[in-house]
Amino acid sequence: MESLSTRHLTGIKNLTLQDVELILSTALQFKEIINRPIKKVPSLRDVTVANLFFENSTRTKLSFEIAEKRLSADIINFSSSGSSVSKGETLVDTANNILAMKVDMIVMRHPHPGAAIFLANQLKKYPKSAHAQIINAGDGTHEHPTQALLDAFSIQQSCGSITGKKVAIIGDIMHSRVALSNIYCLQKMGAEVCVCGPPTLIPKHISSLGVAVSHNLIETLLWCDVANMLRIQFERQQLKYFPSLREYALHFGLTKKKLDTLNKPITIMHPGPINRGVEITSDVADSGHSIILEQVENGVAVRMAVLYLLAGKHQS
Amino acid sequence: MESLSTRHLTGIKNLTLQDVELILSTALQFKEIINRPIKKVPSLRDVTVANLFFENSTRTKLSFEIAEKRLSADIINFSSSGSSVSKGETLVDTANNILAMKVDMIVMRHPHPGAAIFLANQLKKYPKSAHAQIINAGDGTHEHPTQALLDAFSIQQSCGSITGKKVAIIGDIMHSRVALSNIYCLQKMGAEVCVCGPPTLIPKHISSLGVAVSHNLIETLLWCDVANMLRIQFERQQLKYFPSLREYALHFGLTKKKLDTLNKPITIMHPGPINRGVEITSDVADSGHSIILEQVENGVAVRMAVLYLLAGKHQS
Amino acid sequence: MESLSTRHLTGIKNLTLQDVELILSTALQFKEIINRPIKKVPSLRDVTVANLFFENSTRTKLSFEIAEKRLSADIINFSSSGSSVSKGETLVDTANNILAMKVDMIVMRHPHPGAAIFLANQLKKYPKSAHAQIINAGDGTHEHPTQALLDAFSIQQSCGSITGKKVAIIGDIMHSRVALSNIYCLQKMGAEVCVCGPPTLIPKHISSLGVAVSHNLIETLLWCDVANMLRIQFERQQLKYFPSLREYALHFGLTKKKLDTLNKPITIMHPGPINRGVEITSDVADSGHSIILEQVENGVAVRMAVLYLLAGKHQS
Repeated sequence: MESLSTRHLTGIKNLTLQDVELILSTALQFKEIINRPIKKVPSLRDVTVANLFFENSTRTKLSFEIAEKRLSADIINFSSSGSSVSKGETLVDTANNILAMKVDMIVMRHPHPGAAIFLANQLKKYPKSAHAQIINAGDGTHEHPTQALLDAFSIQQSCGSITGKKVAIIGDIMHSRVALSNIYCLQKMGAEVCVCGPPTLIPKHISSLGVAVSHNLIETLLWCDVANMLRIQFERQQLKYFPSLREYALHFGLTKKKLDTLNKPITIMHPGPINRGVEITSDVADSGHSIILEQVENGVAVRMAVLYLLAGKHQS
Repeated sequence: MESLSTRHLTGIKNLTLQDVELILSTALQFKEIINRPIKKVPSLRDVTVANLFFENSTRTKLSFEIAEKRLSADIINFSSSGSSVSKGETLVDTANNILAMKVDMIVMRHPHPGAAIFLANQLKKYPKSAHAQIINAGDGTHEHPTQALLDAFSIQQSCGSITGKKVAIIGDIMHSRVALSNIYCLQKMGAEVCVCGPPTLIPKHISSLGVAVSHNLIETLLWCDVANMLRIQFERQQLKYFPSLREYALHFGLTKKKLDTLNKPITIMHPGPINRGVEITSDVADSGHSIILEQVENGVAVRMAVLYLLAGKHQS
Repeated sequence: MESLSTRHLTGIKNLTLQDVELILSTALQFKEIINRPIKKVPSLRDVTVANLFFENSTRTKLSFEIAEKRLSADIINFSSSGSSVSKGETLVDTANNILAMKVDMIVMRHPHPGAAIFLANQLKKYPKSAHAQIINAGDGTHEHPTQALLDAFSIQQSCGSITGKKVAIIGDIMHSRVALSNIYCLQKMGAEVCVCGPPTLIPKHISSLGVAVSHNLIETLLWCDVANMLRIQFERQQLKYFPSLREYALHFGLTKKKLDTLNKPITIMHPGPINRGVEITSDVADSGHSIILEQVENGVAVRMAVLYLLAGKHQS
């Protein structure tokens, strides 16, 4: 069996192109499986997966849980509210404790950038925990690798190929782990990437990653084949970065009217949850060019592929 | 196989008498099964059910979960606190996202009246979601159909038949989805229904539903065969509708002393959780005429029947 | 099959020595099983276990859940936040309701001392609930029997035997259910027990239990074979019992420096979660004499043994 070059999925940055291609081709097989009447396969039977969510995330957690169930894994859910973490336990102690209960893999969402890499490195020091795989389900503003992989998979399914495609990531680039992981993934696969948004939401160093920067939505749309609209995260008080939601929507919201001026089709993506009328209007989100719900479906297939391939590392 | 006239269970109002009878006769078979040592049947194997609870409900959620487990369904739990909903996502987007992950049925508790019907109607517009079944597990002050069905089933089991029986629903009729669903269900099945409570807790239009209205508990008890005592919901600040809990208990609380004056047996019901000493005293709740715990047991059987019959709609 | 003398595990106090030995010898078999590649056994197939947690407890709850999964039980989780309990339902009504849904065993964590015994006694009065088994997963400052059993099991595994061993329990004895259950268990098994801590954290009656009392850590360490370091529970505002955390750590914190003065090895235990730098320093917690993570692993095996043996009571 082909195998990943890494024991953990902490980010896209340290994956090889072969890793990404292996995950996407494996996801293709799982997508076929989850569209059968009988969606369950025994691939992770007798593997125990702990979902450690130190931050709320309904959709990512549900997607991982469903992926784990389809693979017949045993599942342990752990969320931070009311947990030992609030009692001052360290992240490494929490992980070591869970692994001591004979858990094989940890899927972790954490508010701090670098938490997944830190944990993967620390666990090497503990012989009884060194066997475990860590999957990063989002670490602060750093990476969200399975989102980038499902986005790449969705572009492949929608556009046939990623090589040479022009992909625009539009909105709050500064606070987005989705943007960073997408940039790493799309560039590895040969796409051109442009980030677009108000200057206050684009980090100054971003061009050093080899992406174009734009502050003009129409120009960006004229250039791109795919537009990935990021969400404005009210709950993280981002309103201070632009004058008002109305003005944000006016300049950077994607509307049917703006799309109609382009005289060309664009594939529309969004990692969800959508703010209808802010970064995207309903007539765009629900249009035939939107692959937003396909992204959700593909998320389960891609996460099944990641879990399956890393579990293989465990047995080897 | 006999089949329901509807794809969704949004309320009792739009069920036919045949639907209700089919659910109750199916529940009878499931009640027999859950009293065996081996309580699990494979009927919903490879069916994924999402429990969407936008409002807390320990007992209804547990009852549905156990029903789903007994039927071997795959289960996904989703509750609103800390979810995408608090991030401003619409109900339809949340449902579409969950369904895109290949979920077959949605059991939904929602604080807003009409939420289940609204969702069922909206999903028709999305080809990829149109196949799903929606089960209303309580929508605000509107309907709570599985509670009415389990109440009807419990009366059948206790009294032999519902036709011609006199059923009193006593307490806070105004805010009760249990009352409305019970009225629809009992009338369909040929019972006479009376609602009884303080004038401030009985809606003015209620007699248009063909129910008698009483403000006198003893008169109501003298008339009825079955008394369904509703709970005073402190947590919804209903205290403003009557002078004090003591006065409510004095006039509308069911006590052994009041029952002893009747010289006839009455079947006592309560949807739970009980406020002992308020709407019902312990000597009544724990007496031989109380079928309160039978209602809880029957709840699992009735919910298994509903899940099973609607899943059949899916395959057809 | 050998069998426990009790239908419930409400505490260590009322267990016989034979009960404790049966649980520990059964745990030994389960420890072997959970270290196999295939960790699941069908022992509790068709048994439904409800985890009722009226108080947060990540680690105990996870440990029970994993134990239940390894035994193939059906699992129902119930936690108090947002539940019927906050609607004023009594503990007995909550339990009766859950049992009416055909649940066989209840694992309960409750903030009030005596809650498990109270519930076990009350359920005898309800014929439909009298068959259930109650397992105390911690009741306030009273008992935490499975913790004491896993601690005893861990000492056995580490030291070969408990008889004649000298065990020190160090820290907050006053508020610790772990301390009380450990004292009962270790004494039954023939160990000598000493409690050590600041006078404000040691209850005055404690010597009536036949334990030695010390306020001097070094003297205690010189005496003992095993040191069980309890956690300072910040979240329960115990800071009022000593001048400062620094002073507590200075006098009662276990450090490598203190251990090095002893010229003998001591087995180090901690029920977790650890406050590194307070009751124990990292160089001790992570040293070869620490069996803290073994305790966690053994916890699953011991809980499997308890569940398995009590389920046997059900069938008999």
